[in-house]
Amino acid sequence: MITLLSDFGLQDAYVAVMRGVIASIAPGKPTCDLTHQIPPQDILAARFNLMMAYPHFPEGTVHLAVVDPGVGSNRRAIALQYPNGFLVGPDNGLLGDLFAAHLAPSITAVSLTNAQYWRVNRPSHTFHGRDIFAPAAAHLANGVPITALGDRIDLDTLVQPNLPPFRLVNSQSTAQRSRQYAGSLQYIDRFGNLISNIPGQAVSGQSWQVELKTAHRRIDFTGVKTYADVPIGSLCAVIGGHGWLEIACNCGSAAKALEGMAEVGTLLSLTFCD
Amino acid sequence: MITLLSDFGLQDAYVAVMRGVIASIAPGKPTCDLTHQIPPQDILAARFNLMMAYPHFPEGTVHLAVVDPGVGSNRRAIALQYPNGFLVGPDNGLLGDLFAAHLAPSITAVSLTNAQYWRVNRPSHTFHGRDIFAPAAAHLANGVPITALGDRIDLDTLVQPNLPPFRLVNSQSTAQRSRQYAGSLQYIDRFGNLISNIPGQAVSGQSWQVELKTAHRRIDFTGVKTYADVPIGSLCAVIGGHGWLEIACNCGSAAKALEGMAEVGTLLSLTFCD
Amino acid sequence: MITLLSDFGLQDAYVAVMRGVIASIAPGKPTCDLTHQIPPQDILAARFNLMMAYPHFPEGTVHLAVVDPGVGSNRRAIALQYPNGFLVGPDNGLLGDLFAAHLAPSITAVSLTNAQYWRVNRPSHTFHGRDIFAPAAAHLANGVPITALGDRIDLDTLVQPNLPPFRLVNSQSTAQRSRQYAGSLQYIDRFGNLISNIPGQAVSGQSWQVELKTAHRRIDFTGVKTYADVPIGSLCAVIGGHGWLEIACNCGSAAKALEGMAEVGTLLSLTFCD
Repeated sequence: MITLLSDFGLQDAYVAVMRGVIASIAPGKPTCDLTHQIPPQDILAARFNLMMAYPHFPEGTVHLAVVDPGVGSNRRAIALQYPNGFLVGPDNGLLGDLFAAHLAPSITAVSLTNAQYWRVNRPSHTFHGRDIFAPAAAHLANGVPITALGDRIDLDTLVQPNLPPFRLVNSQSTAQRSRQYAGSLQYIDRFGNLISNIPGQAVSGQSWQVELKTAHRRIDFTGVKTYADVPIGSLCAVIGGHGWLEIACNCGSAAKALEGMAEVGTLLSLTFCD
Repeated sequence: MITLLSDFGLQDAYVAVMRGVIASIAPGKPTCDLTHQIPPQDILAARFNLMMAYPHFPEGTVHLAVVDPGVGSNRRAIALQYPNGFLVGPDNGLLGDLFAAHLAPSITAVSLTNAQYWRVNRPSHTFHGRDIFAPAAAHLANGVPITALGDRIDLDTLVQPNLPPFRLVNSQSTAQRSRQYAGSLQYIDRFGNLISNIPGQAVSGQSWQVELKTAHRRIDFTGVKTYADVPIGSLCAVIGGHGWLEIACNCGSAAKALEGMAEVGTLLSLTFCD
Repeated sequence: MITLLSDFGLQDAYVAVMRGVIASIAPGKPTCDLTHQIPPQDILAARFNLMMAYPHFPEGTVHLAVVDPGVGSNRRAIALQYPNGFLVGPDNGLLGDLFAAHLAPSITAVSLTNAQYWRVNRPSHTFHGRDIFAPAAAHLANGVPITALGDRIDLDTLVQPNLPPFRLVNSQSTAQRSRQYAGSLQYIDRFGNLISNIPGQAVSGQSWQVELKTAHRRIDFTGVKTYADVPIGSLCAVIGGHGWLEIACNCGSAAKALEGMAEVGTLLSLTFCD
């Protein structure tokens, strides 16, 4: 199976062109859209949607992700093999941190330099999705070994996403109640949920709250179990279905309610009350 | 085959997550989108699109419909088996009246209470599409008997859609010319057609007209065969391609022309002139 | 394989209805969307997207294209067989010029008049996509010979698209530097690229420029290799990934920058400086 993610939108047939290329190289292999409505050139939105969806697919799935503002420049085109499948896309932060450090030894990364597996010898300057990435994904789905597609590269050299990371602030303290984590907003979804990069596992049992830190003020949100634990129209913090802490609004849009105060990259901290 | 309908939109990869879950449980089973652009939480729009599309699919198709404002509450998650296939979704009016009363004996309904067929033992409070509905649809496509998925429930207990029904007003009269039917608008499509819940079969041969009843006025529309039977820009009533009476505008949008006067739920009556 | 293109949008389940009809007639045949976001009734946008995508699909693919403002009128419903596959749609300019004149002998065209291959004997007046076009595409995918679907028609009789054509202006001159081509804008994509109907092959090696001819002024654009050859925010002319000359804006939208001055049909000329 091959999944597709891009910022091409659904108005023009650019996605279909990639599908045609895939069907020509790997006939009969099923494809599945992750999304093509990523805002143009928004690498962080692409990374979040890919990260959320790819673990749910069956073993051997090839995930093709093309949000590529640097197309035609010297950014690398890459593919990664991990124990359960493959990721293919530009090396611009989209794929840089999808695996925890301890998984590195099980991952093979290559630069897609072998023109034999491109669609044509002289790829378009503006459409590597069609000429380099889609063919690579199709060949991987056909069973071509990843190392045939180009030179091996070091996982440490991948471009990292431009996002304040999740981390434990006061690591010397061992009492849970005094622990404090920092993170940032990594995605705002269609429902206006503000999704952080703080994993739900950071919370377990005890009472917690999240503080949003804008330039001019700080706002606290009490952690609850589900939207309906607060009155309709009220803001709260929950562990979303995707597994991350999010700031949400019961039957409303947190993004709208906090317009101008919260965007991707805005800092957060998680603290425990008890 | 499995079809998917939701209000998740196409911007976020939430639909893809359901597809991944399905592909993991039922590998190789083809899927088909009905639509994911249902306005958030609009149960009636979901019901109409499902009702319009599902009869066209081959025998054995499983139709998964997730528009679920009550997710996490005590609304039931259900599945229905009818002679030609399966429907899976929340019991909130979406699936309540898709079959005529006389078909009831041929339909098996269950509540999806058997956690063995969920994705995980403790489903998310906010994403039953992924954790309960998609797995149920995939298991049905795999041939798991519907009664394995949970307790049987009575079809009479299903939540009904919140819509003034189609009915014969003066049933004692037998002369066709004096018959009169009542109904309501059940959907407004992308082209601005105002689609009623009066079936096209109610009309046969004779001249007819439809009256729209708003709070402040009544407007009559002459029944014609096709849009082009009236001048460009004019309103008319026709039997749409979907089989229902609709109010339409030749080369225009009836919804725009009647803005503020017609919405889902607005009452209609059908009368015969001859 | 069957591809689908329409102006039905993705909000209503009309596309899904066509898919259901196809799956019922040709079970197991994979389908692929080209796009369904063609602006309502925009035949030229449909033609461009179909033309861009169809050559990338594998041999035997059936391409179904339904943008059909004349549905229910006496416009013909047609199918074309070319050496690599099939095209099915209304005869309204959408399919009229997709093949170069010298390919005509290899192409079979028919009018879809044989009701035996329709979905029902009396098709809807408003939904030939479901009742005539989708069944024809499914039967072709099943291997039914195209000539069984209806009467053969002459390729010369197809309706042509309403677009000023690409042509060599001064054909008597043989010196390349004095050659001059005329053409027009044929599509504006989601990124705001203004795509002409001048093929990239018209340019080879030498310096070139494109002149846009509006009612009130003429604007010149220097031909470059890729967007990044001009400063960010600047306009240029390039050969796009699709293979046509286009006017683009580095990291911006040429359509926005030239708002009110450029639309589909606007005239262009290509000249060589050297």
